[in-house]
Amino acid sequence: MKDIRKRLRIAVIGGSRAGRQAVEAAYETGRLVARAGAIVVCGGLGGVMEAACRGAREEGGLTVGILPGGSPAEANPWVDVPIATGLGYTRNSLVVLNADAVIAVDGEYGTLSEIAYGKIHGRMVVGLGTWDVKGVVTASTPEEAVRLALEGLAA
Amino acid sequence: MKDIRKRLRIAVIGGSRAGRQAVEAAYETGRLVARAGAIVVCGGLGGVMEAACRGAREEGGLTVGILPGGSPAEANPWVDVPIATGLGYTRNSLVVLNADAVIAVDGEYGTLSEIAYGKIHGRMVVGLGTWDVKGVVTASTPEEAVRLALEGLAA
Amino acid sequence: MKDIRKRLRIAVIGGSRAGRQAVEAAYETGRLVARAGAIVVCGGLGGVMEAACRGAREEGGLTVGILPGGSPAEANPWVDVPIATGLGYTRNSLVVLNADAVIAVDGEYGTLSEIAYGKIHGRMVVGLGTWDVKGVVTASTPEEAVRLALEGLAA
Amino acid sequence: MKDIRKRLRIAVIGGSRAGRQAVEAAYETGRLVARAGAIVVCGGLGGVMEAACRGAREEGGLTVGILPGGSPAEANPWVDVPIATGLGYTRNSLVVLNADAVIAVDGEYGTLSEIAYGKIHGRMVVGLGTWDVKGVVTASTPEEAVRLALEGLAA
Repeated sequence: MKDIRKRLRIAVIGGSRAGRQAVEAAYETGRLVARAGAIVVCGGLGGVMEAACRGAREEGGLTVGILPGGSPAEANPWVDVPIATGLGYTRNSLVVLNADAVIAVDGEYGTLSEIAYGKIHGRMVVGLGTWDVKGVVTASTPEEAVRLALEGLAA
Repeated sequence: MKDIRKRLRIAVIGGSRAGRQAVEAAYETGRLVARAGAIVVCGGLGGVMEAACRGAREEGGLTVGILPGGSPAEANPWVDVPIATGLGYTRNSLVVLNADAVIAVDGEYGTLSEIAYGKIHGRMVVGLGTWDVKGVVTASTPEEAVRLALEGLAA
Repeated sequence: MKDIRKRLRIAVIGGSRAGRQAVEAAYETGRLVARAGAIVVCGGLGGVMEAACRGAREEGGLTVGILPGGSPAEANPWVDVPIATGLGYTRNSLVVLNADAVIAVDGEYGTLSEIAYGKIHGRMVVGLGTWDVKGVVTASTPEEAVRLALEGLAA
Repeated sequence: MKDIRKRLRIAVIGGSRAGRQAVEAAYETGRLVARAGAIVVCGGLGGVMEAACRGAREEGGLTVGILPGGSPAEANPWVDVPIATGLGYTRNSLVVLNADAVIAVDGEYGTLSEIAYGKIHGRMVVGLGTWDVKGVVTASTPEEAVRLALEGLAA
């Protein structure tokens, strides 16, 4: 596992409650991030976060979950490295701080705060059926989202 | 000063860099918040934050600035109670957590994160020439913004 | 209230549960801090914090409480300016960051963390019946504690 | 790597500046933690933290570094999973929150704050040439420290 540190880290952000379409898009996004050799970073809870982690794990990838609460047990079962913060929603800033690029899938106000933090921290943010925010690059499919995120990092 | 605790607290959020129009709107908003007997809470820095504090102070009001850095000296001169956090932009969540209602004036991604946190924490958010976000109540003037914020709290 | 910003700020730290002797020492410490024209900053809860705030308020002083939870209502009744953080015990660092000097009264592990942060942030820490830690100046009475803290700041 | 989540996590805390003896003790502690199959969690910087990570990695272990700054590049070269927080020293609380038990090696006030947080969060804290604090279990060697930490968790 000596190469973990060199891998790119992609945050997949989105709501803990998500419809079937968003869950499927997150799962596929997680798979493709892992297939590209990158780590999935997320908020560690359910919905979009869980689907992205599950997708990444089924592809043999590594997943990090930065949690609002004080216990690692709060993480969804597909998180390899849970990071408890005890900061509540204030932890949203830390999720994107630990990513080279951000892919937002669906999402509510928590996701909006993470999109904003992605831009504050100068990250490329790719949107997949999420908030329409100036400066966010729009993708139509998980394939396009992951490709845009990786191309942005290679540039 | 025994009544400080009972006063409403209104967050006036916006960028540390702001054009003349936004500065004037923030200044007037601060004045009107203070005139209504409420405390101005903000991020404590320049631009919209400084203008709102100056307006409030000129009306005899009290101002609280929740700062990103570790030193209270970082606060603009119109902040009565500077709160150093050392949390960087992660402190944005704390600004709106300490307000009964939020008025957003102009602003960039930092303001967008605070609007999102306003909604996450269930606060009424009034927008004055700011991001167009679902769930934010739009006002055309400082008078309307302050009136809407106070009416929302009285309801 | 234009002079609030110029006042010294003294953190009075100690446990939310405290025996009669510690409560009396904290109350007297709060009174003397306020009498000297300084603001009492504390963690905003009960026990030592509440006693210090009550003492300060009865002397006409101003009190700031930096709270672990997300609601200002959590503050003891003698806090003028409650600051909700939602950070849990992680907020301990912020309490001493907002003080020019620190007086520790009694206390358990939370107080020990605040003493450590006081020293990390380069503050003078005066101890009154509290943890015996290298670098903490020991006082025998509230009078001596407040005098030492103020003398340290005048130096 | 499916079993990462099940592994125990041991925080090895201590100063970023450390003498030869402390560095050697930290290195050996890291080795033994990894040999026991547990993850080393630390503050991610130099000194004791770096030595513990290096020891763990040379034994094939996994290391997590929870950093004060906003960039993962700040982590020492032996950290596998750097977590940037941007919280400054306020991140100390998070280091011990992410450990099942804590081993303190040498250290200054930062370490004292982490010992205090270890006790606040109810963790067993083993001390190896560190602060003498009530409730910390003292060990004389890295072997004893790791054994005590693991026995405490098995109990």
